[in-house]
Amino acid sequence: MSPLPESLLLAPENLALATDFYQLTMMASYFQWKMEEDATFELFVRRLPKRRAFLIAAGLEQCLHYLRTVHFDGAAVDYLRAHEVFAHADPAFFERLRAWRFGGDLDAVREGTPIFANEPILRVKASLFEAQLVETYLLSVINYQTSVASKAARVILAARGRNCVEFGTRRAHGPQAALYAARATYLAGFSGTSNVLAGKLCDIPVLGTAAHAFIMACPSEEEAFRRYHASFPDHSTLLIDTYDTLRGARRAAAIPGELRGVRLDSGDMAALSKEVRGILDENGRHTTRIVASGDLNEDSIDTLLEAEAPIDVFGVGTEVVTSKDHPALGGVYKLVERCVQGQSMPTMKWSEGKMTYPGAKQVWRLRDPQGHYTRDVIQLLGSPPPAPDASPLLTPYIRRGEAVCEPPPLTALRSHCLAEVSRLPGELKTLADHATFPVEIGADIAAMVRTLQGEQAP
Amino acid sequence: MSPLPESLLLAPENLALATDFYQLTMMASYFQWKMEEDATFELFVRRLPKRRAFLIAAGLEQCLHYLRTVHFDGAAVDYLRAHEVFAHADPAFFERLRAWRFGGDLDAVREGTPIFANEPILRVKASLFEAQLVETYLLSVINYQTSVASKAARVILAARGRNCVEFGTRRAHGPQAALYAARATYLAGFSGTSNVLAGKLCDIPVLGTAAHAFIMACPSEEEAFRRYHASFPDHSTLLIDTYDTLRGARRAAAIPGELRGVRLDSGDMAALSKEVRGILDENGRHTTRIVASGDLNEDSIDTLLEAEAPIDVFGVGTEVVTSKDHPALGGVYKLVERCVQGQSMPTMKWSEGKMTYPGAKQVWRLRDPQGHYTRDVIQLLGSPPPAPDASPLLTPYIRRGEAVCEPPPLTALRSHCLAEVSRLPGELKTLADHATFPVEIGADIAAMVRTLQGEQAP
Repeated sequence: MSPLPESLLLAPENLALATDFYQLTMMASYFQWKMEEDATFELFVRRLPKRRAFLIAAGLEQCLHYLRTVHFDGAAVDYLRAHEVFAHADPAFFERLRAWRFGGDLDAVREGTPIFANEPILRVKASLFEAQLVETYLLSVINYQTSVASKAARVILAARGRNCVEFGTRRAHGPQAALYAARATYLAGFSGTSNVLAGKLCDIPVLGTAAHAFIMACPSEEEAFRRYHASFPDHSTLLIDTYDTLRGARRAAAIPGELRGVRLDSGDMAALSKEVRGILDENGRHTTRIVASGDLNEDSIDTLLEAEAPIDVFGVGTEVVTSKDHPALGGVYKLVERCVQGQSMPTMKWSEGKMTYPGAKQVWRLRDPQGHYTRDVIQLLGSPPPAPDASPLLTPYIRRGEAVCEPPPLTALRSHCLAEVSRLPGELKTLADHATFPVEIGADIAAMVRTLQGEQAP
Repeated sequence: MSPLPESLLLAPENLALATDFYQLTMMASYFQWKMEEDATFELFVRRLPKRRAFLIAAGLEQCLHYLRTVHFDGAAVDYLRAHEVFAHADPAFFERLRAWRFGGDLDAVREGTPIFANEPILRVKASLFEAQLVETYLLSVINYQTSVASKAARVILAARGRNCVEFGTRRAHGPQAALYAARATYLAGFSGTSNVLAGKLCDIPVLGTAAHAFIMACPSEEEAFRRYHASFPDHSTLLIDTYDTLRGARRAAAIPGELRGVRLDSGDMAALSKEVRGILDENGRHTTRIVASGDLNEDSIDTLLEAEAPIDVFGVGTEVVTSKDHPALGGVYKLVERCVQGQSMPTMKWSEGKMTYPGAKQVWRLRDPQGHYTRDVIQLLGSPPPAPDASPLLTPYIRRGEAVCEPPPLTALRSHCLAEVSRLPGELKTLADHATFPVEIGADIAAMVRTLQGEQAP
């Protein structure tokens, strides 16, 4: 296991308590009733959000780090022991917590892989005691990063090969969310981020321009351009909209020496970018790039490019870091199998509108002879592949608490993501949401559902 | 300054890099051009989001901690020095970073105070060098917590005195966002959270029930209820919807001994809660509380209570922790004044649709003889109060880098919030968004805008 960026996470001694209280009360009850058997939980999304023809799995690296690090220190145990709900709890329960380290199994879909509804992203097999504890943290990491990577993949499709840079730190849900967002957007194909810490911790290219405050802090716009350009002669992207964009463009074009880029941050971007391109070209600045920013998303980028706006780089912030049209991914973590006296017992939930498929599962992805993906089949784990060249999406990462697979570096995951998205059917790679990728529930699962329905709820 | 919950934050050595890259390039340029003068920046929201008649200021405590802790360690400086953009930067710039600690002033609105568009939540006066650096972090903390507290305040209004508990950790944008959300919802009047770490770090009451997995892991629903209740005889809230809610309610009612509560998590909550109340009452369980959860927000809570659903506690998650209808608050941090050779120079931004008011400001809140708030007046700092009993909202917290005011504990801020909201006009305290609180821009600011417009942009 490679050294992981610890600071993407909370302080290690606090990880164990970063969970819902009911996990701990259930754990105490499992402990009291000696419900020590193994159980299998799967993390998946019941339905794709509107306007998401696919999701991009993301966040696994942080989950792996969590599972290998999480433990209860003395202060955590003391906090729990002092809670009125645990006033009469068995002291042995707290000793068990103090000694506990994750000792179960984890299988997961590689980060950057497109996934669909009902397909497990992670599968945890562990004692009920520990599988329950880790639910909340795994969900919070996977839900958010997957949500951002999925939105970012749409932005990348809309940008048609132009560079997209993540500029959203100030609108992310706090500094840690900003790091996760920088990571998840890069995974999905962004070229870089403005977040310096994400650059340092995750080895993501870090980029920036300048802000209005710099222009306003100088005696004049010309002087601001001159000073900033002199500070970074090879790397200056000048912000030209503080007072008047076209006048700003002419002043920028007049700067002596090379000019890397100019940035537009307000106004009618399609019209302005054409006029600015004209001004730059008239001044022989054919290589100066136009960067656009300001509440951009996949739709506005698509509209700009349909209008042939000569924009070279899109700075995308708020919309992608909050996945603004779907700010909460409904990933769930459900008990699908219990092991009772060595026997597998599939389980399913019957609550209205919240039914789950029983049994530990594998997702198989099928392709045509050209390598394009044609459909997925979800089957019970252990059933034979539905086709000779079907690939299993879930692979082992942890066995009995020990890492058995080192996740690839982020740049490799990014290449994987771009390649996998390219193999999806064309109709999924538009901004509309008319197309649905075929995902079949295997006959083995359907048969098991019928059996369990026959037995009905206990 | 009280000891702050450090773990709400990132590791201290990483705080300085939790910023946008352009802050650092601008800082290098300020350094090179000896632009050492002080500047004043204000953090505010240009427009209230739809369906928010007011915002609740939140996140100041984390900002204070940041400003008092942030510094560049050797690894941070080495990372920057190695970046190609800084290849030719003056080594003295990096020495300045290494030695730097925040030495400016901070004034702020007390957390839990209702605020409106254009009203500064924070005011930073510091050298351009340092005021620029801290922008990104302050925005990410204030934007998110203010967003959640403002949504939570609506939920509290809708719940009409019933308890609301924050259950959203798994859908928050990562583990740190979950902590911020627990804190901001409690500040706005929630009764507690399911997030254990938030309980430990912020001294928020921690609550929980049980999950479907527990029920499904037991041989039967009856046995699950029996075991869980035996583990926590005084604190059991039994989840009754795993198989069939009404059957679940009858089974829960049949448990020997006291029963604290039952939880509904699916189905038609208005109808089910009435039937469940009936079942509980028939069994003499008049004190057993009904807890409802499942994608609740202020509107669904309002609808349930309009339908006289006998629900005692609302568990609210996704909707409040993501502020789902407005997942990104557009707080901005703008240069409003520069100090040039000892002279105050007000500045304003002219970009289309993004104009800002110039000058360092104070917000005055006016009340009627009964103590109800009637209007706000935003004036230049130093102008006399617009009325004898007007209260200034911004007060000093940091002077020259030193704390001059200790923020009250979270419980006191929560009481402050509930009291301040109660003093708002009644028409602001509905779920509709028809009413607007009167906020006047003072004549002094208007005159300054005219003067600057006369001078026009440099």
